[in-house]
Amino acid sequence: MIYDFSSRYVSKTATKSVSEFEYDAPSMKTAVPGPNDIQLCLSPGPQNVGAVHFFCNYEESRGNYLVDVDGNRMLDVYTQISSIPIGYNHPALMKVMTNPNNVSTFVNRPALGILPPENFPDKLIESLLSIAPSGMRRVQTMACGSCSNENAFKTMFIWYRNKERGYANPSEHEVDTCMINQSPGCPDLSILSFMGAFHGRTLGCLATTHSKAIHKLDIPSFDWPIAPFPKLQYPLEEFVRENAQEEARCLEEVEDLIVKWRQKGKPVAGIVIEPIQAEGGDNHASPDFFSKLRNIARKHGCAFHVDEVQTGGGTTGKFWGHEHWGLDDPADVVSFSKKLLTGGYYHRDELKPDKPYRIFNTWMGDPSKNLFLSEVLNVIRRENLLEVVTRSGKALLQGLYTLQTQYPHILSRARGQGTFCAIDACNDATRDSIMIKARNKGLFMGSCGEKTIRFRPALVFKEYHVHQLLNILNDVLAEHK
Amino acid sequence: MIYDFSSRYVSKTATKSVSEFEYDAPSMKTAVPGPNDIQLCLSPGPQNVGAVHFFCNYEESRGNYLVDVDGNRMLDVYTQISSIPIGYNHPALMKVMTNPNNVSTFVNRPALGILPPENFPDKLIESLLSIAPSGMRRVQTMACGSCSNENAFKTMFIWYRNKERGYANPSEHEVDTCMINQSPGCPDLSILSFMGAFHGRTLGCLATTHSKAIHKLDIPSFDWPIAPFPKLQYPLEEFVRENAQEEARCLEEVEDLIVKWRQKGKPVAGIVIEPIQAEGGDNHASPDFFSKLRNIARKHGCAFHVDEVQTGGGTTGKFWGHEHWGLDDPADVVSFSKKLLTGGYYHRDELKPDKPYRIFNTWMGDPSKNLFLSEVLNVIRRENLLEVVTRSGKALLQGLYTLQTQYPHILSRARGQGTFCAIDACNDATRDSIMIKARNKGLFMGSCGEKTIRFRPALVFKEYHVHQLLNILNDVLAEHK
Repeated sequence: MIYDFSSRYVSKTATKSVSEFEYDAPSMKTAVPGPNDIQLCLSPGPQNVGAVHFFCNYEESRGNYLVDVDGNRMLDVYTQISSIPIGYNHPALMKVMTNPNNVSTFVNRPALGILPPENFPDKLIESLLSIAPSGMRRVQTMACGSCSNENAFKTMFIWYRNKERGYANPSEHEVDTCMINQSPGCPDLSILSFMGAFHGRTLGCLATTHSKAIHKLDIPSFDWPIAPFPKLQYPLEEFVRENAQEEARCLEEVEDLIVKWRQKGKPVAGIVIEPIQAEGGDNHASPDFFSKLRNIARKHGCAFHVDEVQTGGGTTGKFWGHEHWGLDDPADVVSFSKKLLTGGYYHRDELKPDKPYRIFNTWMGDPSKNLFLSEVLNVIRRENLLEVVTRSGKALLQGLYTLQTQYPHILSRARGQGTFCAIDACNDATRDSIMIKARNKGLFMGSCGEKTIRFRPALVFKEYHVHQLLNILNDVLAEHK
Repeated sequence: MIYDFSSRYVSKTATKSVSEFEYDAPSMKTAVPGPNDIQLCLSPGPQNVGAVHFFCNYEESRGNYLVDVDGNRMLDVYTQISSIPIGYNHPALMKVMTNPNNVSTFVNRPALGILPPENFPDKLIESLLSIAPSGMRRVQTMACGSCSNENAFKTMFIWYRNKERGYANPSEHEVDTCMINQSPGCPDLSILSFMGAFHGRTLGCLATTHSKAIHKLDIPSFDWPIAPFPKLQYPLEEFVRENAQEEARCLEEVEDLIVKWRQKGKPVAGIVIEPIQAEGGDNHASPDFFSKLRNIARKHGCAFHVDEVQTGGGTTGKFWGHEHWGLDDPADVVSFSKKLLTGGYYHRDELKPDKPYRIFNTWMGDPSKNLFLSEVLNVIRRENLLEVVTRSGKALLQGLYTLQTQYPHILSRARGQGTFCAIDACNDATRDSIMIKARNKGLFMGSCGEKTIRFRPALVFKEYHVHQLLNILNDVLAEHK
């Protein structure tokens, strides 16, 4: 199906089926930022606001539409950096708040590791365990994505050292040296990551993040190995042979690095990778690449950690991005956050720490977020949202193909899985200008990489929303010519 | 005032003034863990539960009393590792939940750094800014204590490097090297911490944590300097001269380490310290020590970071533990979490990062926690809870002095500020046994260090609660004789 941008009929009829709780289209009153917004930015208060796009009116926002403080209503395909699963003010989530049985969960935040609420195991089973990736029956909740990856790394280090010492108790020397940050108690282990990756910005995570200098400059780091991530050509179907070569090159480099770092005395305890590099510019790789990478991890005794913080939660058309790979040998760790509303990670039984308190902090998550998550999962099932994502994603990618054919001097490399789509502009200035113009017409998008526009709509993004998006983008590009 | 444990009259009359929302005493139906609890622990579900003390019924918990799944109602002086500010199910917090104006804040968690809600600056001013430590007008919220300290460290690193390069732009070489974890882009900077400290368990924080081996074993770390924390004798008033000598020794070591690490090419960008080392065993130091330490930081160009994650929020009788020091030259960074319900840190204007996105993550806190915090602060003011803490703290410490006089072979080193009190047992087995016996009589306490009992009641812990606590503890000790 190719969209015909000469006629706008498709999207106009489609809007009639809009969910009752939602608006039916963007509606702009001013440019963004508008006068109220500018006022707020000029008296910015005590928090640093240099990165603020605009101030929002969340009360008035609905479904796929984000309303700003000037009453501008935008189709939001960035969704709070991909962290709003079923749109704004979804009635199912409002109900969680008004159910008197839930009040206590919100007002008494427990130290989950030592004093869990009676119903916590059941709530976990009903929420996170009901969507557990293949091979995983254990989950550890955490407060955010960075904490999830930090603790996933720790889990892999502990597992690796236990293997190394043959599951014996640590020596006195290890116990003593760990207290002063020295080996062997604090061993020189490493995590292998990929150039272009983003796994968070706390010091451990940041040592595996390599997407933008602004994340890393001036922060001390670890000497850990960094492999090249395949630089594929799109559409993937048209460059199968070239891409396979590129992936083979990267995998060879991975094995070389594992050997090299072992020789350096900094063995690789784990490999961490995103199913699609998001912050780094929406870089894809094939199922074959990931499954060979998994085999390399297995071969060298490294844990295999799939970071699903941005890809998890349904946005690729499957609940987890890595389900598209069809792995025979599941991952060892899968971390999540954002659309899951709580951070955390699943792990294989084998990676369960040998002692309590090895993975621990005060809150270890927030049960009130699990209440919301249960409702989100109900809505996903009830409304078949994974199918919706698959359908909308096809329409979106097809539309992006059409646009890049129409505007080849501006757009290229349309790519995506589900609604997790992206397209490159010819340079960053053009990308930024397209985004600002689109925003003023009621379409709010995100950026990533050097010159990429990323689409991260909520799971309730339907085909008529795709049409709205494509129409606005087409208008902007037509004017840009 | 010395308590007379031969008569229990004091506490019996006092319970009549109990707040209406609270119970008036502990009430035990079974030993802890009881049969329901054991059942739950035997079918533990998907989350690791090795550290679980018992499962709780938070709906039935009120004020200072925590109810478990067997209907046992305990006086809780551990309060979820010191993170419940005004007791369980406080009516003021329940009201936050039932106010329809608040619903949107709970169901639409924003990416605060880019799309804050319209009222967020006002909510910050009304909550966190209204209690800002001296010299601080800027605050950055975060999701938990570890993230707060991680980002506080990053803020100090960025500030330090900007000073070093004379506020010029980073070189191309710095930008390139930071992407691959190498200096000068990722510089060899360090944070000086103290033996016995606890600042969190993510990899950056963990490099400054030195309280227990179980926190650190098998996790790679940084070669950062670790100074001795003064080992004082208690009561402080009786050992002024000896303690001053010990503190002078530690301060000298701090300066030596700063010089030594500069020579090693790993300059100290910041010094981090707790006002009272909590997890490490409730170790105190004098205002004079802290103020000299602050001067050393100033002299050597290091930032001075006070970690108030456990001491903040009123528990020492002042809102911040470091207010007791009377510093002329305020700290550079003050981090918080736990009783503040949201993580975060204040910093001086001078430490504001020079560019947006240098300190950033998806959520950067959670505005729904600020709603609760505003109410907590209202309650603290309305009910003069800092005075309550001071009064209860005096009674508690006095009672602990009496107990250690009565049981000198079991107890020693009673110490505290406000209700942030502790006492040592003769060894860890005795400490653990006292805690279990007390729990079975309805008093739930925490431990820290090697053989210390720590008291961390909520701010609504009144004198008659102190009497309940002391009576139970006295009963346990009398049987222990």
